[in-house]
Amino acid sequence: MYNFLDGVNSPNDIKKLNIKELEILAKDIRKFLVKNVSNTGGHLASNLGVVELTLALHKVFECPKDKFVWDVGHQTYVHKIITGRKRNFSTLRQYKGLSGFPKECESEYDMFDTGHSSTSVSAGLGMAVARDIKNEDYDVISIIGDGAFTGGMAMEAMNNLGFLKKNMVVVFNDNEMSIDKNTGAFSAYMSKIIHNTDTLSFKDRIDKIMNMTQVGGKISQKANKLTETLISSISPQECGLIDAMGIRYIGPIDGHDLSELIETFECLKYIDGPKFVHIKTVKGKGYKYAELTPEKYHGVGKFDYKVGVESSSKRSISAVVGQTLSQMAGYNDKIVAITAAMPSGTGLNYFEERHPNRYFDVGIAEQHAVTFAAGLSKMGMKPYFAVYSTFLQRAYDQLIHDVSINSRPVTFLIDRAGLVGNDGETHHGQFDLSYLNPIPNITVMAPKDTEELINMIKLSERIDSTVAIRYPRGNEYKFEASKYEFIDEYESEELSYYTIGKPEKIYDVFIDSTKRVCIFSIGNMLDDVCQAVANILKTSDDYSFKIYNARYLKPMDEEIYINAIQDADIVISVEDNVKTGGFSSNIEKIMSENNVYKELIKIAIPDAFVAHGSVDELKEEIGLSSRAIEKAISGIKSNI
Amino acid sequence: MYNFLDGVNSPNDIKKLNIKELEILAKDIRKFLVKNVSNTGGHLASNLGVVELTLALHKVFECPKDKFVWDVGHQTYVHKIITGRKRNFSTLRQYKGLSGFPKECESEYDMFDTGHSSTSVSAGLGMAVARDIKNEDYDVISIIGDGAFTGGMAMEAMNNLGFLKKNMVVVFNDNEMSIDKNTGAFSAYMSKIIHNTDTLSFKDRIDKIMNMTQVGGKISQKANKLTETLISSISPQECGLIDAMGIRYIGPIDGHDLSELIETFECLKYIDGPKFVHIKTVKGKGYKYAELTPEKYHGVGKFDYKVGVESSSKRSISAVVGQTLSQMAGYNDKIVAITAAMPSGTGLNYFEERHPNRYFDVGIAEQHAVTFAAGLSKMGMKPYFAVYSTFLQRAYDQLIHDVSINSRPVTFLIDRAGLVGNDGETHHGQFDLSYLNPIPNITVMAPKDTEELINMIKLSERIDSTVAIRYPRGNEYKFEASKYEFIDEYESEELSYYTIGKPEKIYDVFIDSTKRVCIFSIGNMLDDVCQAVANILKTSDDYSFKIYNARYLKPMDEEIYINAIQDADIVISVEDNVKTGGFSSNIEKIMSENNVYKELIKIAIPDAFVAHGSVDELKEEIGLSSRAIEKAISGIKSNI
Repeated sequence: MYNFLDGVNSPNDIKKLNIKELEILAKDIRKFLVKNVSNTGGHLASNLGVVELTLALHKVFECPKDKFVWDVGHQTYVHKIITGRKRNFSTLRQYKGLSGFPKECESEYDMFDTGHSSTSVSAGLGMAVARDIKNEDYDVISIIGDGAFTGGMAMEAMNNLGFLKKNMVVVFNDNEMSIDKNTGAFSAYMSKIIHNTDTLSFKDRIDKIMNMTQVGGKISQKANKLTETLISSISPQECGLIDAMGIRYIGPIDGHDLSELIETFECLKYIDGPKFVHIKTVKGKGYKYAELTPEKYHGVGKFDYKVGVESSSKRSISAVVGQTLSQMAGYNDKIVAITAAMPSGTGLNYFEERHPNRYFDVGIAEQHAVTFAAGLSKMGMKPYFAVYSTFLQRAYDQLIHDVSINSRPVTFLIDRAGLVGNDGETHHGQFDLSYLNPIPNITVMAPKDTEELINMIKLSERIDSTVAIRYPRGNEYKFEASKYEFIDEYESEELSYYTIGKPEKIYDVFIDSTKRVCIFSIGNMLDDVCQAVANILKTSDDYSFKIYNARYLKPMDEEIYINAIQDADIVISVEDNVKTGGFSSNIEKIMSENNVYKELIKIAIPDAFVAHGSVDELKEEIGLSSRAIEKAISGIKSNI
Repeated sequence: MYNFLDGVNSPNDIKKLNIKELEILAKDIRKFLVKNVSNTGGHLASNLGVVELTLALHKVFECPKDKFVWDVGHQTYVHKIITGRKRNFSTLRQYKGLSGFPKECESEYDMFDTGHSSTSVSAGLGMAVARDIKNEDYDVISIIGDGAFTGGMAMEAMNNLGFLKKNMVVVFNDNEMSIDKNTGAFSAYMSKIIHNTDTLSFKDRIDKIMNMTQVGGKISQKANKLTETLISSISPQECGLIDAMGIRYIGPIDGHDLSELIETFECLKYIDGPKFVHIKTVKGKGYKYAELTPEKYHGVGKFDYKVGVESSSKRSISAVVGQTLSQMAGYNDKIVAITAAMPSGTGLNYFEERHPNRYFDVGIAEQHAVTFAAGLSKMGMKPYFAVYSTFLQRAYDQLIHDVSINSRPVTFLIDRAGLVGNDGETHHGQFDLSYLNPIPNITVMAPKDTEELINMIKLSERIDSTVAIRYPRGNEYKFEASKYEFIDEYESEELSYYTIGKPEKIYDVFIDSTKRVCIFSIGNMLDDVCQAVANILKTSDDYSFKIYNARYLKPMDEEIYINAIQDADIVISVEDNVKTGGFSSNIEKIMSENNVYKELIKIAIPDAFVAHGSVDELKEEIGLSSRAIEKAISGIKSNI
């Protein structure tokens, strides 16, 4: 079916092919990518953009002897295809299947796990330093996008690299996109450097120098003055930004021209020290739908590749958040919205449309985003920073130091809290309740459903101090108590400024002759809880229940909790956060501080990282599903 | 006594003075600084370096209408002197006295609290954006050092500033120092830009342009082409790095030349958009001892200003750490040491002396430091990152994402854990036990004294996964059980690979007829615990005690804890970390998971930020002193 792809099972198979053949292989790979990702879902556009780059790297360098560090890592599908994992592509991002990111445990060709952005120069520099200390001999190549380059730690690493002058290559993959259109001054600056075909190519220049200086082998840093002078003019273009960091700039190179890429990478071997190769690529290259709207093809679900991704009829929770905030900003001119390069991911694209002057995409720069929000709030604005749970980890210090010390009225809209599914370990929002809990002066909420989320966002407007609201990935959903036959009375309790800390009672029927089980559930776990209780009540008369929707992690209205605990035989806490330091810790704290001890069953994410798979599969595996909750309750039986 | 300082009580008093008078005032201020700081201790060298800068800013701008954001903030003494706080300088950094950092609660002239570095451009940009949204009119000036500029978030902010093109000033205070000599490629690059006296001064150029274009008022961005061209050559020097960010570079300026500073700041008002003023200053300027060894005068204790700071005969805990690690690296060639601009603060200067090739000062770049360590460990090295507790917050994501997911053998030497004293709120290491606790795959230790700390560092060498060891600020000290008469048998229990998680029993005499109190203490709180118990036992027969030194936060050998809890009537946990999510949470967890409930008294830092003062004063205030522990135990009495 494929002209060359069928014969490619390891990087060695690439090395045998000539340019023409590689060009055909690139086409094969694009076909393979579109077909496979349309079946499994995954990151499409970024992988289509790096086909030639990946082939050229594997053609020139010796992986795994040479170390490739892929920044973010969702663009490693081509690398995976080449390094023996082609056959597993039907399992991509599926439970127990191929990861969508580099995984050291998956292949020796995957040198360093990534998932979050801007780490590759730091990791690569660590490897280069280790190599030199140990007197080993290999190349280190960090591949970073222009989006990831806006993250401060990439700059920290460049600053250190330019100082240490280690032999390593930074490949700057410039497609002028993060997930959405890239932003910031660096990006604008880099995009102005144009490929100049009038001047000599990089290879021509190298050849010329080689001939003139007759160095023959490597042009070392100790080469004579003439060589030095020539090398300093080696790149067709200059780049003040990179020069300033003491790193040799080479570029820009057409990232879809295999022959130019390969020649450039070959020539790099003749230059000592840190090198920065600027290549220009087109995100989504070769698949017309993805080229047109690459942001739509960044991360996709299954789709029909003949017609492209069709818009979903369902509204995401993120969209609800963006729309709600945008609506609030219509009557409150103090509201400002901030995203760190995730306008569509966080739903703030809706805010941008309506309030462009109060909308800020700061780039992949969570640290700056938080302190920027602090500055805004100091001057009387009401900033909202919408950010994924796992990425807020990047701004932990700023949250403490710049926001919470002065209890500034910044609101954190924490998206993708809990399990996120197919992105796996690096992306689950499994720590936020724990890392927010010890911070003073902060109100932390988690809604049971989208309606409550909207109400919490509205409530945050009235809270003149720091607020965090965490909610899951997915489509909008409503908790329907009537769906559960055992609940015959339920009316949502008011969520108001005066009830901060108060949990909502969902169900309350304790029967003395039974084991009385009081369940405290935080966030979106409530449906699983109710499902479990419904199943138990259907088959057994041994238990009776109280169910609370916590709503707040901090503060917690202790009196209500104490009373509920006192009335119960057994208490269950439920959260999609790790077992340490989060919601269950607060229940234990209330028990211990008030001397109301009851047996406590904690349903939570265990003290471990959770792999990829569907959220349902993962919940089943780690004991967070309604079935697991049911089982936990049934387990109590033996004690009656 | 002073020629002009006596008459200066607000910025208005500065505005009345001419250059000659200001120069005399600058001398007065330096005298005042040296005299006062030698009495109270504090940050001296950095303040001596910014005397003229601060005067010029207050002369030209209207503080507090115009907003000054001081990066890090320990260089605001001159600003405090000018803004009405001169008389309070004897209370500087003392309990209930003047803070050593800007404090919004202290003065309307302090616009934004700082303490950690690299935040000022973000905060300032937030203010500038708020101003423009609200159509207000003020200047925003962020003052950042070249050390702070190595922090990634400063670059994130510059990237965003260059994109948003807001009207604001970044004053780059280049003294080529962080606390120690500054490092990194940026710093090297900036220091190469030399003040060129041959060319026209910045003011001359502005004047020339004003005459030529007859714009009269502001030279707006919309000015005609001629003006634009002229403006683009406005600075005597160019700076590719800053240009690349879309920010107008002006400099370098002699930061001790009042007239040049004032003229430059005046001229800034004629240029729209973001401006970056590069000024060169000498850290410690005007006090010969501080000019010679500015790192010694960064933060000082009391000293005789006539003879300068004399070296202490006591060895700091940090020095012990640096020396221990250096010694280990003598026989283990895999050991690498990393600091984020704190070689002397962390004691790694000792390591640097002996093993310069395995020592890395990466700049104020904690994020990079952690992932750099991860890269080193991936290639077989054994990296140690020595960092202050409060600054590790900056690398929380990297700790989780790049180190702990793969349980990499990186060891974190967490200095300044617990209360640090006079630096106050922004510097206490009060959260580390809580933020480390939820992270999987990590061993967390805290020693009772310096000897145990050494043993823990040695033990970490044998642990092939992630380790964190937290220890306090201060001089080396030894826990002497014999000092406490009630302890008649005590031999330190072995700390070995096979006892990871095991607490050390210090004392164990339960008497049935008494209230049996079991105390679990983590880290350096043990002396206070023993002192409290000694006092109680001297005056009362109502209690008997077991005392454990926890050694480990994670893992904890549950069996020992369970047995000890079961035997006791009351349990006390003691830690110098916040009450939520740390050591006491783990005790509550053990109780709840094993159904061994006893009344628990938690001695910990409350859920709040702690101000500045001596550690003893602060411990007294927040209930962490031995007296407070004694009181807590006595309080139990009524229940017998």
